[in-house]
Amino acid sequence: MQTQGEEKKEVEIQVTPKPISSIDPKKVGDLSNANFPMDAEGRVYHLGVKAGEVANRILSVGDSGRAALLATFFDDPSKTFTRASTRGFVIHTGRRKGVPMTIIATGMGIPMIDFVVRECRAIVEGPMVIARFGTCGTPQTDIPIGSICVASKGSICATRKYDAFLESAQKEGARKALDYYALSTIFPADATLSELITAKLEKSVRPEIIHRGLNITGDSFYSSQGRVTTHFEDYNETLLDEVLEIHPDVASLEMETFHLRGTITASAATIVLAQRRSGAFLDHATTRQLERDGGCAVLDALAEYPLLEGETMSGDCVWNQ
Amino acid sequence: MQTQGEEKKEVEIQVTPKPISSIDPKKVGDLSNANFPMDAEGRVYHLGVKAGEVANRILSVGDSGRAALLATFFDDPSKTFTRASTRGFVIHTGRRKGVPMTIIATGMGIPMIDFVVRECRAIVEGPMVIARFGTCGTPQTDIPIGSICVASKGSICATRKYDAFLESAQKEGARKALDYYALSTIFPADATLSELITAKLEKSVRPEIIHRGLNITGDSFYSSQGRVTTHFEDYNETLLDEVLEIHPDVASLEMETFHLRGTITASAATIVLAQRRSGAFLDHATTRQLERDGGCAVLDALAEYPLLEGETMSGDCVWNQ
Repeated sequence: MQTQGEEKKEVEIQVTPKPISSIDPKKVGDLSNANFPMDAEGRVYHLGVKAGEVANRILSVGDSGRAALLATFFDDPSKTFTRASTRGFVIHTGRRKGVPMTIIATGMGIPMIDFVVRECRAIVEGPMVIARFGTCGTPQTDIPIGSICVASKGSICATRKYDAFLESAQKEGARKALDYYALSTIFPADATLSELITAKLEKSVRPEIIHRGLNITGDSFYSSQGRVTTHFEDYNETLLDEVLEIHPDVASLEMETFHLRGTITASAATIVLAQRRSGAFLDHATTRQLERDGGCAVLDALAEYPLLEGETMSGDCVWNQ
Repeated sequence: MQTQGEEKKEVEIQVTPKPISSIDPKKVGDLSNANFPMDAEGRVYHLGVKAGEVANRILSVGDSGRAALLATFFDDPSKTFTRASTRGFVIHTGRRKGVPMTIIATGMGIPMIDFVVRECRAIVEGPMVIARFGTCGTPQTDIPIGSICVASKGSICATRKYDAFLESAQKEGARKALDYYALSTIFPADATLSELITAKLEKSVRPEIIHRGLNITGDSFYSSQGRVTTHFEDYNETLLDEVLEIHPDVASLEMETFHLRGTITASAATIVLAQRRSGAFLDHATTRQLERDGGCAVLDALAEYPLLEGETMSGDCVWNQ
């Protein structure tokens, strides 16, 4: 879906994230408070950043390459603040269309996104909004790879029932996949943010590739999303079918969105990399194009989101330097 | 606990991990098989490595700085194979005392360790053994910070009951923390590996700082480990007390060990960074010293673990170059 020339251009605008060694280990050492570890300068332990380094509006992505690519679309990329923590997080803060914004590469899974929500909330003053722009698989045959799903109908969490696995050796007889996996009730997305993201995506990429739907966040990529592997007995061969019987409108399967919840205003859009019924996987060039165009659309949605009183725009913050 | 001179020496032996940009994005692009994504060269999607790049014996650590530090203790560090993936994993492969070995910086949490287990298992031929050398908090007042806990009594998983939170707005009255968090049954550790790790640690660091005990793996650092935060209602104020009533021998609280289970031979040792009752947090210099001395002990335990027929020692592998 890209010409050779376009692909070259895409490669040119890639930036090299600062290496992991850019953190001075002394800066994250000598912490206090085992309940919520922070260093003497107020730097949170796992993300390695402090107040003034993370903006009120946050884009969360799983892939550090995607984060670095999207940071090149800040107003003045040369002024971007970048920090990589030793726990796998990379933080880029700058401005998009004048609005302070942070892009965080989170790694994957609920525990990693929990660090992002908790540790950002601890150092961001005033209201906070998080949009996720990730990747997903889809169980729907009419949603092709290269689509983008907006989780506007909310999200469900699918978790492994550990005790069912520990006990399974003692049990006999055919059992359902959902004896081994739990589905939570639906947690809604923020409607305003979902609408903004959808509108921006429809303008930035073709509207026909945007799907609104229900998302499922699995507590793993493999077992709780119904991937069958040869080395492990996961009892998940029929999981997708059983889930679709209960929730026929599941559009996307991924690993973080459900946890962006509670007191955090949040929504999510995800590029469909994997068609789980046909086994198709999106090519790299199209993925990068959608990461760039879709990512800029989500940044613009974040920039336009109406935050209220108390948003930290001025002061001694990295986006004012 | 360190003199200035020792600290300087420690800083000198730190290596700079290859920057994230060391991965050629084209090398992980264009994958096939949505069920288990691998590229044309057999590279697994999230770890970015292929057969011959990961040894049968694996040390899993959470922190990329710790992984880089321990890789300097390979027989010939200049020959170490290092790859950082864009999903937060850093892989170092070399030999320790002649034995092929891989150190992986995993990031944090069950989903991240699941990628390590699944994707390594897919590319490692023959038997596979994983030891974890991480950090933890302890709820026991008689285990001070700076101790090392070996999870020789096995591990329990503590997970957030999402639906209890979604429903809590409708419910009235005082409830227990364990209405909001589930505890699994105990999953045992590998006894041979636990004993080897304990023996090596007792020789490498002082025996009196080694504690054998039960481990709890939480599905988050904050809520399911009983950390109380001001911004979120986690109903976890009494969680540690309630857990200790049921399991008085819990020595360590962390985020990965329970998931190293099933068909993988595994055990874990964790440095006690946080004393959860007093709130004390271990200083940076002592942490680094324990990471180095304890990490070498765990590497030696892995090197001596008796693997059987089928271990990949020869052939076109990065540890033979």
